[in-house]
Amino acid sequence: MNNRGKIYVVGIGPGNMEHMSLMALKAIENSQVVIGYKTYIELIKDLLHGKEVIDSGMKKEIERCNLTIDEAEKGKTVSIVSSGDPGIYGMAGVILELVNKRKSEVDVEIIPGISAANAAASSLGCPLMHDFAVISLSDLLTDWEVIKKRIKCAAEGDFIIALYNPKSKGRENQIVQARDIILKYRKSSTPVGIVKNAKRAKEKVVITDLENMLNHEIDMFTVVIIGNSNTYIDKGKIITPRGYKI
Amino acid sequence: MNNRGKIYVVGIGPGNMEHMSLMALKAIENSQVVIGYKTYIELIKDLLHGKEVIDSGMKKEIERCNLTIDEAEKGKTVSIVSSGDPGIYGMAGVILELVNKRKSEVDVEIIPGISAANAAASSLGCPLMHDFAVISLSDLLTDWEVIKKRIKCAAEGDFIIALYNPKSKGRENQIVQARDIILKYRKSSTPVGIVKNAKRAKEKVVITDLENMLNHEIDMFTVVIIGNSNTYIDKGKIITPRGYKI
Ligand SMILES: C[S@@+](CC[C@H](N)C(=O)[O-])C[C@H]1O[C@@H](n2cnc3c(N)ncnc32)[C@H](O)[C@@H]1O
Ligand SMILES: C[S@@+](CC[C@H](N)C(=O)[O-])C[C@H]1O[C@@H](n2cnc3c(N)ncnc32)[C@H](O)[C@@H]1O
Repeated sequence: MNNRGKIYVVGIGPGNMEHMSLMALKAIENSQVVIGYKTYIELIKDLLHGKEVIDSGMKKEIERCNLTIDEAEKGKTVSIVSSGDPGIYGMAGVILELVNKRKSEVDVEIIPGISAANAAASSLGCPLMHDFAVISLSDLLTDWEVIKKRIKCAAEGDFIIALYNPKSKGRENQIVQARDIILKYRKSSTPVGIVKNAKRAKEKVVITDLENMLNHEIDMFTVVIIGNSNTYIDKGKIITPRGYKI
Repeated sequence: MNNRGKIYVVGIGPGNMEHMSLMALKAIENSQVVIGYKTYIELIKDLLHGKEVIDSGMKKEIERCNLTIDEAEKGKTVSIVSSGDPGIYGMAGVILELVNKRKSEVDVEIIPGISAANAAASSLGCPLMHDFAVISLSDLLTDWEVIKKRIKCAAEGDFIIALYNPKSKGRENQIVQARDIILKYRKSSTPVGIVKNAKRAKEKVVITDLENMLNHEIDMFTVVIIGNSNTYIDKGKIITPRGYKI
C-alpha cells in the first residue's frame, strides 16, 4: 500500500475556471486538501465543496509550500494551486526545491496551465507569433543588473518581449528603465499590448506603442507585451507576422 | 440578425483532451465545422460527432485558413484547431492576417492553450522557473542569420532557452549549430531536457546536458529546453531556482 501522499502543483490558468484544463480540474477533484493564495482559491471556489481549504496571503510562498508537504506527508492528496502555469514564476520550483531539501518521499506531479502571456496575447491578436522572451521585472529575488542585461539582450535579438511583474506599489521605476533600454534598439512606434486581469471578469486590454505605453495603467495584475521589428497593428489587433506570403 | 459567421482559433493543448481548456471544449462544441491538420483532428475525434470535419495535410496552412474563412463567411461557426497555443507558431497569425487581407467581416476569437514548452517543462521538473526565450529553429519562414543572432542573444543574456521545431528530415544541422553557439556562453554540463510528444501517449522524456544532448533522438515532435547558469539536476528533475532562500 502506498501511503506516501501526493502533491499536485496545479496551474489554474489565467482567470476563471473556463481556462483551466480538464487535468487540473481532475487533480483538484481528487484532492482532500487544496492550498493557495486567497485570490486563486476564490477563483475556483465552486470546485472546493467538502474539501479542506487552506488559503494564505502573498509573500508566504515557502510557508505555503512547507505546509503542502506537511499535509502530503500525512498520506493525503494535496493540490497547491498557482495562477497561470505553475512552472512559470509559480509554485513548481519552491515545491520541488523543498521536497528535495526535506528529503521528503511524497510524490509530486506538476499540472501545466495557460500562462498569462499566452492569455494576454490571445486578447491582443497574435503578438507572440514569432520568437519571444519572457522576463520578470521583479527584483525581489533577482539582481536588477541581471534583469537589465536580459532586457538588453532580448531587445538586441529582436525578440518579442513579455514582461511579467512589470510594476507594483514601491516598485515603479523598473518598467521605465526597461522601456528606455528597449528604445535603444526598437522604434518608438513599436506596438505594445498591456493586458490587466487577462481572461478575468475585469479584463482590460490596451493597445499602444513604446512612445506612449507609460501613459497607461500598469500594475501587478498586468502583463506587457512589446512587439518585434515586424509587429504591426491592424483593425485594433497586434499582429506579428510569422513570415508566410499572405 | 448577425449572419457574419464566427471563427474560433482553438488551442487544444499539447496532447490528448486532458490538457485542453473548458473554453476550448466549448468552442468546438459550439462549432458546426471543425478544421485542422489530421493529427490534431485525430487527438480530439471524440468531440467531433455530428460535425462537418475537414482535415488537411501539413504545409497547407494558408489553404486551410482560407477554407476556414470561406466556411465562416457562409454564416457558420467554425473552429480551426492548433496544437498547444494557437498564438505560438500556430494558426492565430495566418487567420488574422488573411481576414484583414480579404477584408472579411467574420468575427475571430482566439482561445489560448497550453504550449509545448510549458507541457514539456512540467514533465522535466521546473526548468522554466526563471526568464526564458522561445526560439523556433525552422528556417523555412525565417532567415537562419536572424535565428542564429537570437540564439546568441538568448545565450548571452543567460535566458533558459526553449527550442521549437528543433529538427526535421532534411533540416538536421540547425540544432548542431544552435548548441555550438550556446556552448560559447554556457558550460557543457548545463542541463538539457528533451521531450518528445509531451503529454501524449508516447511521451519520451530525456534529461541530459549540453555535452551529450546530440546523442539523443530529437525530431519535429520534440521540444528542447536548455537551462540557465543556475539550473541543476536533482533526483531526476531539472530545477531552475527562482532565487528563494530555501
Ligand atoms: C508571480 S507571476 C505568476 C505567473 C503565473 N504563474 C503565470 O504563468 O501566468 C505574477 C505575474 O503574472 C502576470 N499575470 C498573472 N496572471 C495574470 C492575468 N490574468 N492577467 C495579466 N497578468 C497576469 C502579472 O504580470 C503578474 O505580476
Ligand atoms: C508549428 S510548432 C506549433 C507549436 C504549438 N502551437 C504550441 O504552442 O505548442 C510545432 C513544434 O512545437 C513543438 N511541439 C508541439 N507539440 C509538442 C508536444 N506535444 N511535445 C513536444 N513538442 C511539441 C515541437 O517543437 C514542434 O516541432
